[in-house]
Amino acid sequence: MTSTQRRLCSLALLLAWLPSASARAADDLPSWNDGPNKRAILDFVSRVTTAGSPDFVRPQDRLATFDNDGTLWCEQPNYVQAFFLIDRVRALADQHPEWKTKEPFAALLKGDMKAAVSGGEHGIADVVSATHAGMTTDQFEKLVTDWLATARHPRFKRPFTACVYQPMLELLIYLRSKGFTTFIVSGGGIDFMRPWTNRVYGIPTQQVVGSSIKAKFQARNGGFEIERLPQIDFVDNGPGKPLGIQRFIGRRPIAAFGNSDGDLQMLQWTTAASGARLGLIVHHTDAEREYAYDRKSPVGTLDVALDQAPERGWVVVDMKSDWKTIFPPAAP
Amino acid sequence: MTSTQRRLCSLALLLAWLPSASARAADDLPSWNDGPNKRAILDFVSRVTTAGSPDFVRPQDRLATFDNDGTLWCEQPNYVQAFFLIDRVRALADQHPEWKTKEPFAALLKGDMKAAVSGGEHGIADVVSATHAGMTTDQFEKLVTDWLATARHPRFKRPFTACVYQPMLELLIYLRSKGFTTFIVSGGGIDFMRPWTNRVYGIPTQQVVGSSIKAKFQARNGGFEIERLPQIDFVDNGPGKPLGIQRFIGRRPIAAFGNSDGDLQMLQWTTAASGARLGLIVHHTDAEREYAYDRKSPVGTLDVALDQAPERGWVVVDMKSDWKTIFPPAAP
Repeated sequence: MTSTQRRLCSLALLLAWLPSASARAADDLPSWNDGPNKRAILDFVSRVTTAGSPDFVRPQDRLATFDNDGTLWCEQPNYVQAFFLIDRVRALADQHPEWKTKEPFAALLKGDMKAAVSGGEHGIADVVSATHAGMTTDQFEKLVTDWLATARHPRFKRPFTACVYQPMLELLIYLRSKGFTTFIVSGGGIDFMRPWTNRVYGIPTQQVVGSSIKAKFQARNGGFEIERLPQIDFVDNGPGKPLGIQRFIGRRPIAAFGNSDGDLQMLQWTTAASGARLGLIVHHTDAEREYAYDRKSPVGTLDVALDQAPERGWVVVDMKSDWKTIFPPAAP
Repeated sequence: MTSTQRRLCSLALLLAWLPSASARAADDLPSWNDGPNKRAILDFVSRVTTAGSPDFVRPQDRLATFDNDGTLWCEQPNYVQAFFLIDRVRALADQHPEWKTKEPFAALLKGDMKAAVSGGEHGIADVVSATHAGMTTDQFEKLVTDWLATARHPRFKRPFTACVYQPMLELLIYLRSKGFTTFIVSGGGIDFMRPWTNRVYGIPTQQVVGSSIKAKFQARNGGFEIERLPQIDFVDNGPGKPLGIQRFIGRRPIAAFGNSDGDLQMLQWTTAASGARLGLIVHHTDAEREYAYDRKSPVGTLDVALDQAPERGWVVVDMKSDWKTIFPPAAP
């Protein structure tokens, strides 16, 4: 490029970019009400991205981890994966007449999740094995995709993937525009999330960490497949979250976002280190527009993490007052 | 941007970019000799990246997986991690006088790797437990980094991280310039690779898949740490490679690069699917500049995969004739 070309181009780009850049800076998080919580997010991002700032972090080290259930999408009145599981049990019930009298299958067939989980983790493991295993990874992906296309949230009457939080979608986009790499670190099934996280959150499969069952590689019919086995491999929840981060991501994030005690250790691991750190809890305080729950909730219990938030400097988002809107506009 | 600005800018950019683009296209892989293998790589990349091509693949789906030992860096006369392990055993020997008579430790202290591995996997697991566990992840990372800074390859007398293959470094950069995401999928220890893969290969920690031991999250001295436990968690080799790909990456790659039967299933999984696929084997044929080995080699055995290459259409790189240079220039 000659110097004349360079000057022409710089001028043209400057004229073109200035207005749009300032318009964007005006509000990167339009669904967040102004207040200390929004300012804490903007201030953290400014400190780690401003060259020369004592808290500056290189783009390659700007890692942010997000819980999914209750942090990015609605987890009430039950985890979305629980609705999927119940529908799978119903779909398979004809092949398993014994389920009518065998718990926790019998309770699930009646849609009684509370009774179903009362038998403890062992029973739930049986159900996961029966509904999530015994098929290839490709077959499972299709089941999830097909189910999400037709299933609807019982209260909001829209697809579960439309019951995601608009303010959090904006936060994901904002962080990526500032050089962050965004990850999901969820207690949910890793293969239940991956078919749709890129479309819905802009997070590709390789940036999704979750719970998993074991699998087996095998040759079959002249091709190859990965068969899902009825055995829990890894539970990415509670103390499992820092371990999942270490195993999949390999470094400590500088920002973590959660909403329940299942995120406690991820928040601890992320923020108890030198340099600028952001820990954030979505506190569900809005029974009218979404749900209000914390310490006593059977799903998404927030108790210990809420107590630790002040001393550890975690931002506690008050959904009712901090968020202008909860969900994205309904699809036309 | 006004239309005048747009025209000025387009013109400036066109004039500036044309020459450099054609210069780069002249040879993206300068250390590769012209021939059918280099052409097969360039042709594959062209087909999957040309808009309108029947084999076009969206950038987000351009995933390429690379074995490490023998594919990206030298694995002879032994795996680099074996040299590390021997040095760890030596460093810890004073605290373990019993190792002088206990196999495989006694053999390792004499530097006799052949005798050490003759006891089978159980013995090696004992050594891995003794040398790779019982410390935090931060401590292990420091051990690896410090060791690599001073250890030298016994024949080439340079750091192991300088015994990487220049043609493969060019291939990594070339693929990324074409929108690919590059991953390591190695039988080696995941935490042994991550401290240096970004610096050496441009591959960040979250794109490194490897073998692992179990770990534990714990509070300690007012902070938190992840303790490495003496128990194998996952072996990312052979049929473990497609499983590692599924678990960590979550989708099938469209290109895979290996050099041994440990990569057989990764190559099968990658290439036995519809659409354009590239499988490539680095065949070590150059005893003069590096090493010549395949079917009978105790390290990096290449036998079944070499037999399957023709029928499966895998490119078999002949190191001696395909590569102009093996290693990068020595640091000044």
